[in-house]
Amino acid sequence: MQKDATQEQIDKVSEEIKRLGLTPVSIPGTQRIAIGIIGNAGPIDPELFIGLDGVRDAIPVSKPYKLVSREVKPDDTIIQIGDVKIGGNEFTVIAGPCAVESLDQCLTIARLVKKAGAQLFRGGAFKPRTSPYSFQGLEEKGLEILAEVRKQTGLLIVTEAIDHDVLAVVEKTADIIQIGARNMQNFSLLKRAGKSAKPILLKRGMSATIEELLMAAEYIMSEGNNQVILCERGVRTFADHSRNTLDLSAIPAVRTLSHLPIIVDPSHAAGRRDQVIPLSRGAFAVGAHGLIVEVHHDPKHALSDGPQSLYPEQFAELMHSLKTLSSVSQEGNK
Amino acid sequence: MQKDATQEQIDKVSEEIKRLGLTPVSIPGTQRIAIGIIGNAGPIDPELFIGLDGVRDAIPVSKPYKLVSREVKPDDTIIQIGDVKIGGNEFTVIAGPCAVESLDQCLTIARLVKKAGAQLFRGGAFKPRTSPYSFQGLEEKGLEILAEVRKQTGLLIVTEAIDHDVLAVVEKTADIIQIGARNMQNFSLLKRAGKSAKPILLKRGMSATIEELLMAAEYIMSEGNNQVILCERGVRTFADHSRNTLDLSAIPAVRTLSHLPIIVDPSHAAGRRDQVIPLSRGAFAVGAHGLIVEVHHDPKHALSDGPQSLYPEQFAELMHSLKTLSSVSQEGNK
Amino acid sequence: MQKDATQEQIDKVSEEIKRLGLTPVSIPGTQRIAIGIIGNAGPIDPELFIGLDGVRDAIPVSKPYKLVSREVKPDDTIIQIGDVKIGGNEFTVIAGPCAVESLDQCLTIARLVKKAGAQLFRGGAFKPRTSPYSFQGLEEKGLEILAEVRKQTGLLIVTEAIDHDVLAVVEKTADIIQIGARNMQNFSLLKRAGKSAKPILLKRGMSATIEELLMAAEYIMSEGNNQVILCERGVRTFADHSRNTLDLSAIPAVRTLSHLPIIVDPSHAAGRRDQVIPLSRGAFAVGAHGLIVEVHHDPKHALSDGPQSLYPEQFAELMHSLKTLSSVSQEGNK
Amino acid sequence: MQKDATQEQIDKVSEEIKRLGLTPVSIPGTQRIAIGIIGNAGPIDPELFIGLDGVRDAIPVSKPYKLVSREVKPDDTIIQIGDVKIGGNEFTVIAGPCAVESLDQCLTIARLVKKAGAQLFRGGAFKPRTSPYSFQGLEEKGLEILAEVRKQTGLLIVTEAIDHDVLAVVEKTADIIQIGARNMQNFSLLKRAGKSAKPILLKRGMSATIEELLMAAEYIMSEGNNQVILCERGVRTFADHSRNTLDLSAIPAVRTLSHLPIIVDPSHAAGRRDQVIPLSRGAFAVGAHGLIVEVHHDPKHALSDGPQSLYPEQFAELMHSLKTLSSVSQEGNK
Repeated sequence: MQKDATQEQIDKVSEEIKRLGLTPVSIPGTQRIAIGIIGNAGPIDPELFIGLDGVRDAIPVSKPYKLVSREVKPDDTIIQIGDVKIGGNEFTVIAGPCAVESLDQCLTIARLVKKAGAQLFRGGAFKPRTSPYSFQGLEEKGLEILAEVRKQTGLLIVTEAIDHDVLAVVEKTADIIQIGARNMQNFSLLKRAGKSAKPILLKRGMSATIEELLMAAEYIMSEGNNQVILCERGVRTFADHSRNTLDLSAIPAVRTLSHLPIIVDPSHAAGRRDQVIPLSRGAFAVGAHGLIVEVHHDPKHALSDGPQSLYPEQFAELMHSLKTLSSVSQEGNK
Repeated sequence: MQKDATQEQIDKVSEEIKRLGLTPVSIPGTQRIAIGIIGNAGPIDPELFIGLDGVRDAIPVSKPYKLVSREVKPDDTIIQIGDVKIGGNEFTVIAGPCAVESLDQCLTIARLVKKAGAQLFRGGAFKPRTSPYSFQGLEEKGLEILAEVRKQTGLLIVTEAIDHDVLAVVEKTADIIQIGARNMQNFSLLKRAGKSAKPILLKRGMSATIEELLMAAEYIMSEGNNQVILCERGVRTFADHSRNTLDLSAIPAVRTLSHLPIIVDPSHAAGRRDQVIPLSRGAFAVGAHGLIVEVHHDPKHALSDGPQSLYPEQFAELMHSLKTLSSVSQEGNK
Repeated sequence: MQKDATQEQIDKVSEEIKRLGLTPVSIPGTQRIAIGIIGNAGPIDPELFIGLDGVRDAIPVSKPYKLVSREVKPDDTIIQIGDVKIGGNEFTVIAGPCAVESLDQCLTIARLVKKAGAQLFRGGAFKPRTSPYSFQGLEEKGLEILAEVRKQTGLLIVTEAIDHDVLAVVEKTADIIQIGARNMQNFSLLKRAGKSAKPILLKRGMSATIEELLMAAEYIMSEGNNQVILCERGVRTFADHSRNTLDLSAIPAVRTLSHLPIIVDPSHAAGRRDQVIPLSRGAFAVGAHGLIVEVHHDPKHALSDGPQSLYPEQFAELMHSLKTLSSVSQEGNK
Repeated sequence: MQKDATQEQIDKVSEEIKRLGLTPVSIPGTQRIAIGIIGNAGPIDPELFIGLDGVRDAIPVSKPYKLVSREVKPDDTIIQIGDVKIGGNEFTVIAGPCAVESLDQCLTIARLVKKAGAQLFRGGAFKPRTSPYSFQGLEEKGLEILAEVRKQTGLLIVTEAIDHDVLAVVEKTADIIQIGARNMQNFSLLKRAGKSAKPILLKRGMSATIEELLMAAEYIMSEGNNQVILCERGVRTFADHSRNTLDLSAIPAVRTLSHLPIIVDPSHAAGRRDQVIPLSRGAFAVGAHGLIVEVHHDPKHALSDGPQSLYPEQFAELMHSLKTLSSVSQEGNK
């Protein structure tokens, strides 16, 4: 639509789309609103819309995804929650333990990562574990702890929803709902996330292509939730010097194809502490919009993923290093 | 337990396990019953049980999985549904279209594959699709069609459950409930499947190790459902001459580690018709317990996966070829 | 060319090709001779040749490879060395130890594998080893041992050439010269192999596509050596239950694209003895033209690759199993 | 050895090693010399050496590689050629076209990359090509052009040796000899490179583990050439948004395990121009010692790899961006 299109004009275009048996989806941008069309089996003649009042242009989208596509929405999506922004020229850091273990543990870590500059706190209350006999998280009790951490530290909360029912519980507490790599193509969960009012942090599956990642985001957006943050966390390869192979080329690839923000999880990618700082610096330099990093004050006794958690002093060192880089890099991440 | 252990002796062992704060899980075999112990943080002294009446041996299981392990249950699990057996020395063939499209389509295909020798009919009513805009299946209507196919042809029905809610619906109709590759680590769905009375066909994830596949089966079994059929369907690699790389070495590997049956899906592995017959023959020869094959009478107009569906006459040729091989191969697949 | 084309007609076509600044390559078939054209930058007009005497047809080849292509030579290449044939409807078994260790060791194994039905003997005299400190083979001394084995047992000899100089030595003794997976894209070695009068056994590289494998064979054929046997030996993936992932779908893919024979190396694929028999059976059933299998009478003391070598009695069991399958399978591998 | 060990003491230790039937290898460091022992089948008692004059310590090396190991030589290897240093805290940029096409082409590009800050010029005279029908390089003529480029611009020359014979020719002209990814396990070529007086740029194979890369470097060093520069250039995975998946975690992994410098080739990794600048920035930030980047003034008409070559103005932009990062990053790459 044109910049100065009226609500009436927008509604008329939507009605016209519906009249053709198709579904309009509104995609608000900073300067103008775009209206995506979904439900078409084949190409639609742009001429059908170009003549309508307030319509600036009608662009056939060649990719299988639409709403996530930069062709449809050229300007970066910036997700704002309270004072925190994710996307655009921001670099946002989420930090915390793999699993919520106790209020004490969470508060200790939260205070340390906040002091070092983290803007959000991560911690799993519901844990997807390879073994049914592993610690599955503190569940509701864990969410209460996270809420208390937010109250006491002001840090916003990111936590994972492992299924429908959990999502319904988690969305009451979390500021951002995480969908894990193993659920990236759990299409029912994606549709449910698309109906949530909370932003979704969507992790790339262990062997997902960029197109599949974007299609998963499209599932969320097609249900009406435009607040999707993508996350590169390494793919599975033959290489054995890190747990997964962090694919930093995914960052420029996604930024070219999509307007959505993309952050990096160096902790799950590496699976070992000593690669987290270099990979975090690399993520910054290739143009990621942020990091999600595991930090634990006592990793030896962590209930999960201890070997990949940074010590708080390492996290502080990382944040310092990123601040220094960022002082000269505004123009680098355009 | 000893072969002639009484129910009372079995109950006593279970009580003793509970008394130690652990959970007993009964694993019935053809000759004797085994009782698995889950919930232990570390090793348990076998001496605690060896003295009890009816106990034949107490075996510490070194693998992270227990109930699926051949160490715990040395004899092959054979799943019987009506007259159809899967496992042991049987070779069982499931055939049908990717998606249920209409009663007519399903009946046409079902009659042809039954005539050629298939024992079960497959067809997706709820389809997990990469794109939210692709055909998602006929859903409940599709299940009705499948029920009608069973009624008219006598073929048992295999169909996929893509989430909790769907599983609750599907288990009313299906004879075997399929869990797809993308849901192999949807742990909530696995737990729910573990509470079903129906056998579960569990497909290997696109980049899952054998250990992860067995752990996924362990999730199902740890909830009480011992009827799990594993399925190799190809893993994702750099190779581009087939859609996925069928990993037939998974068959001997699984047969060594586990008592569960494992079948092969050559259609999704290859993604192209011309490799399905050779790969099916290969699956038979390496010792798989069966096949799940896509067949369509009109693949050009199939709503999904047309290019990988066999023509009915090709399927008949395949069944003939397998019968010939099987006439000489009893001793080969021991 | 037509079936009854005279040598004069063939020469005339070759001259015409040269006159156009291109290079003719003769590709003899069982029924007729084909003349490939190489050196062209873009497509050539078929009309330039169709009018010439003795020319049956001029077929533009769409693949990047030509001489290896089934489009150019539709009938299977069968390589005959003495009484042994590889290709077509034959199933040929090469067996022996990883490395030549002593005359005694080789004769012991050679007699056992010959008795079980192997037609060729394998053994490395020059070994490509990951470490410079590992046993590098007996070199020339090893070749002498292999010659003696052939003399005493009548088995033909397959051994590896790891570079130019070694190829020049090996080709004096070997009946078939092996080029290993790590050298599949050692283009200089391929060109040198193309000038040898001996057949070449070319192993697929650890992460080579089928197209790259065929292009490597094209290097050999473009230098004039038409006797190339391809070998699938597993590709590198994340999977850890076998050393490499044997890609049996490569067999039908290669058989469709090329007239060259393709055999399977289950020993290097699996890296462990217990998968070798099932994978060998699988290789037979998908339509491979043969096997190259490691056998050792004392694998615990083998100087390399002991854990993947079959015991002689296992090899005999394998050969028996293959004979049984083959009794019913003539029509399966068409 | 101790810092002040005399040549006599060093010789005595070497003799003692030889007396035991082993081979001493001298590894000079900036502060002290180390003597590696190779040729041992199992562990050697450190006590055999600790008492000798001038010996500081005897350290059993647990890795399969020795000479490349940081355990043996804790300080970074810095390779100096003229004024150019590679390794340690340096960040060195090699730039130029994929292939040498003409003197004019090379001089044009060389002047532009020199002006932008590149320290070495790359260009292939002998090209390893997947197809025998592709342009194979200008060969000796190409080397003459490279020598002329060095003469006119002062830029040092990096070019590839594809086999023994070519290496003997290339080492007369090149300042650094490149061994390509496809030859990383061409052990004969590695041994020959180990006898060269010129530094070797060794690229990681397409599916090589870090251990295999280091073992390949060990081959070179075990023949006496300590000047090895490693190069990460992407590994082969299922991902299709870049030609290969650049594995930046290899940088911290190698820097921990080895004292050798490691640089990054973003051009062959990405295979497309638009990812080269972000990946180069990432390479810098994770701690690589430099880059090798393809630049072409007229990529549309390049004889090979045009789509991945930067335009000269993009290269200048990259160099500017790296200089800005480097102004703040001394402490980051420690």
